[in-house]
Amino acid sequence: MKKLLLLFALLASATASQAQQDSLMLRKLYDEALVNGQCYENLRYLCKKIGPRLSGSVGAQKSVEWSKKLMDTYGFDKVYLQECMVPHWVRGAKEEAYIIDGKTRIKVPIAALGMSVGTPAAGITANIVEVKSLKELDQLGESVIKGKIVFFNGPFDQRFIETGAGYGAAGVQRFAGPSAAAKYGAVGAIVRSISSALDDFPHTGGTVYAEGGVKIPAAAISTMAANKLSNMLRLRKLPLIKFYFKQSCQTLPDVKSYNVIGEITGSENPNKFITVGGHLDSWDLAEGAHDDGTGVMQSVEVLRIFKAVGYKPKNSVRAVFFMNEENGHKGGLKYAEVAAQNNEDHIAAIETDEGGFTPRGFSFQGIPATQLKAINEKYKSLFEPYEADHLIAGGGGTDIGPLKDTRPAIVLIGFRPDSQRYFDLHHSSNDVFENVNKRELELGAAAIASLVYLIDQHGL
Amino acid sequence: MKKLLLLFALLASATASQAQQDSLMLRKLYDEALVNGQCYENLRYLCKKIGPRLSGSVGAQKSVEWSKKLMDTYGFDKVYLQECMVPHWVRGAKEEAYIIDGKTRIKVPIAALGMSVGTPAAGITANIVEVKSLKELDQLGESVIKGKIVFFNGPFDQRFIETGAGYGAAGVQRFAGPSAAAKYGAVGAIVRSISSALDDFPHTGGTVYAEGGVKIPAAAISTMAANKLSNMLRLRKLPLIKFYFKQSCQTLPDVKSYNVIGEITGSENPNKFITVGGHLDSWDLAEGAHDDGTGVMQSVEVLRIFKAVGYKPKNSVRAVFFMNEENGHKGGLKYAEVAAQNNEDHIAAIETDEGGFTPRGFSFQGIPATQLKAINEKYKSLFEPYEADHLIAGGGGTDIGPLKDTRPAIVLIGFRPDSQRYFDLHHSSNDVFENVNKRELELGAAAIASLVYLIDQHGL
Repeated sequence: MKKLLLLFALLASATASQAQQDSLMLRKLYDEALVNGQCYENLRYLCKKIGPRLSGSVGAQKSVEWSKKLMDTYGFDKVYLQECMVPHWVRGAKEEAYIIDGKTRIKVPIAALGMSVGTPAAGITANIVEVKSLKELDQLGESVIKGKIVFFNGPFDQRFIETGAGYGAAGVQRFAGPSAAAKYGAVGAIVRSISSALDDFPHTGGTVYAEGGVKIPAAAISTMAANKLSNMLRLRKLPLIKFYFKQSCQTLPDVKSYNVIGEITGSENPNKFITVGGHLDSWDLAEGAHDDGTGVMQSVEVLRIFKAVGYKPKNSVRAVFFMNEENGHKGGLKYAEVAAQNNEDHIAAIETDEGGFTPRGFSFQGIPATQLKAINEKYKSLFEPYEADHLIAGGGGTDIGPLKDTRPAIVLIGFRPDSQRYFDLHHSSNDVFENVNKRELELGAAAIASLVYLIDQHGL
Repeated sequence: MKKLLLLFALLASATASQAQQDSLMLRKLYDEALVNGQCYENLRYLCKKIGPRLSGSVGAQKSVEWSKKLMDTYGFDKVYLQECMVPHWVRGAKEEAYIIDGKTRIKVPIAALGMSVGTPAAGITANIVEVKSLKELDQLGESVIKGKIVFFNGPFDQRFIETGAGYGAAGVQRFAGPSAAAKYGAVGAIVRSISSALDDFPHTGGTVYAEGGVKIPAAAISTMAANKLSNMLRLRKLPLIKFYFKQSCQTLPDVKSYNVIGEITGSENPNKFITVGGHLDSWDLAEGAHDDGTGVMQSVEVLRIFKAVGYKPKNSVRAVFFMNEENGHKGGLKYAEVAAQNNEDHIAAIETDEGGFTPRGFSFQGIPATQLKAINEKYKSLFEPYEADHLIAGGGGTDIGPLKDTRPAIVLIGFRPDSQRYFDLHHSSNDVFENVNKRELELGAAAIASLVYLIDQHGL
């Protein structure tokens, strides 16, 4: 009995000292991020010297080359490009749009939705029908919709605390609305920007045409212009208000592009992997600062921090800059495909693609409640001093998603920054470097580094 | 035994239904704040139509008058002004400052510290001595300091996760540095702006002269200029670098001003009070958006939300716009004095003066650990869906502090928004409306309303 007690005491003290050691390491990782952090200046370069980098663009190619050089300077064990074919959509000339009220033409700010077709060169003029949802569209049907422009004006529901939920709910209009309107004979679609802000900036984003369906031109309109249009439709008789828009976007043949990958090879398990990634491509309207310059720069910062503090991971840790998250996910698909081919044993993947805001925690995708509870018991208290301790069930991310199919045991994890400002900026010309806060960005990198360290040491 | 079980079951179900009721009410308060919120537009008016409002200024008086009118429109049970005498410090003409390097004069941005004396009309030119702390000043002593300008260049420690701790640590240079330098015969003091940002905006803030000591002119210098000056001092021999500055600030006789108070009188305990407050005055350099326009507008929003959802508090709930937090705390002192005179029984006071950022929780001042634990057990889970659930030990606030002396049983509570961006802006010309996010501000108002509701229903 005494021996048993001694064993318990030893075990308890070992655990205590392990917890203490972890706690000290987290403090070290945070100190390095906050005192010697490089992700903010790296992000400045990406945003200001390279700028927009939609798949297939010159900016995307430049960003690939620069990212590889950046990783080379950090002296990781491996730095390489991973080829993938990506769609090549181009916006063309700046869009034009007017509300036509009798003889009055009111100019409004629009931006073609990603992957949309263009209008005829002369633009499209038609009566406009407002709907607030796909259901309302279905109720109106072909008799009302045919020959018209459909105006999807479902609002962003501000009641969600996590704004991603509001984005998802309103987002279906953008993803699926234009194609659904085409089914009823609509000639174009104008979609209220999916934004939590009321302002005059259109927010673009991809739309998805149904396989084999008619493709009609589709554009986002600013939230303020959407309100104006809606008010005019309410106050005037319908036939008096027409809408005109013109856009010259088109999809060119696919082009070759790359994921950019850096790796610190595991000292004990070189074929086991923990992947940290964001996406390098961005929409064309802005600098892609929060979406997702912050994510890629945090990812490489995790590896830099490990080297700086002299931490040698047992398992291989990779920073992956995925290409083409915005309009095709080809980079994420390719990464999973190659991982499967090479029989790589992926333990976990963490995606950071919700902006570079203050960390709140992490979301774990599709794990049993018991495992999530155990993760909280092991790790929550370690994250509490950093207020990044909300470890909850939720999504991993678009780019790491395909890894699940190849490795069912992998745990997919989403980094969860505070969500309040993201959809004010997202996919609009406001998503610029100036809207990123240095400390918030660095705290995110430190939180992710901390989780990678803990997984590397103790698993999930 | 059966009866006992039945009693337990009834009790448990009553508790469950109480928790459910609370949960529903919190959701209602949040919905009202997020969907019909008025604090953002009220803040816009305060910042853009009134602007800076340092105690004693025309702006301060205008803000008092407008605030009372605003509260009148909400139809609270009582709306009144509470007179107090406040200091009247004025900046005068814009400051000038140069680093003098031989024949070269390099212009640098400074701002007189609040309550500082001015320089002679011709300004001051002197050699400059850099110190990083008050301790270093003491070590150098009179032989080095006499006749010189002391340059306090202690940096903002970025390692603190809660930036308020970094502010406090570096802040002692500003509060006490000039007076300490004067003791050793310094002729002026230049203090590195206490800011987490590296930029070219000086951050002002009060300095405190020791009773009976010599008062020397003191100014804040931007962090970038501080780095430049420090580098020059390091590279050149000391006597080559001189510093010139000129400021015409002065303290005029005290003037009459007011706290602005709105009250919903308690339906059961009219003489028991829960106070929610921020401060109406601001420094003169900017709009005082986060410091503390957000705080006052959240405070009145709490009462507006209660009326909007039809909640009639049992205890009296007051929104207090304190005057003169920045350079004297006279409003806070007066409020406590009157509360004592009137034998008001204050249960709790909540101060919001750390910016209008995303809520993280609340800090409870000086309560026993057992009580804090009980508060967490009762309320933490209710705040979890809103991620405002960090209920920790910590400060209440400057303005509510004096209430403690009159009512030892009162619980003083600080609203804790995310701290990362606050000291980038604080006391500088960047503290403007544009840097406030609507949702973050509204979530703060909702969190405070929720806590007031819970205290009103169940105590602490």
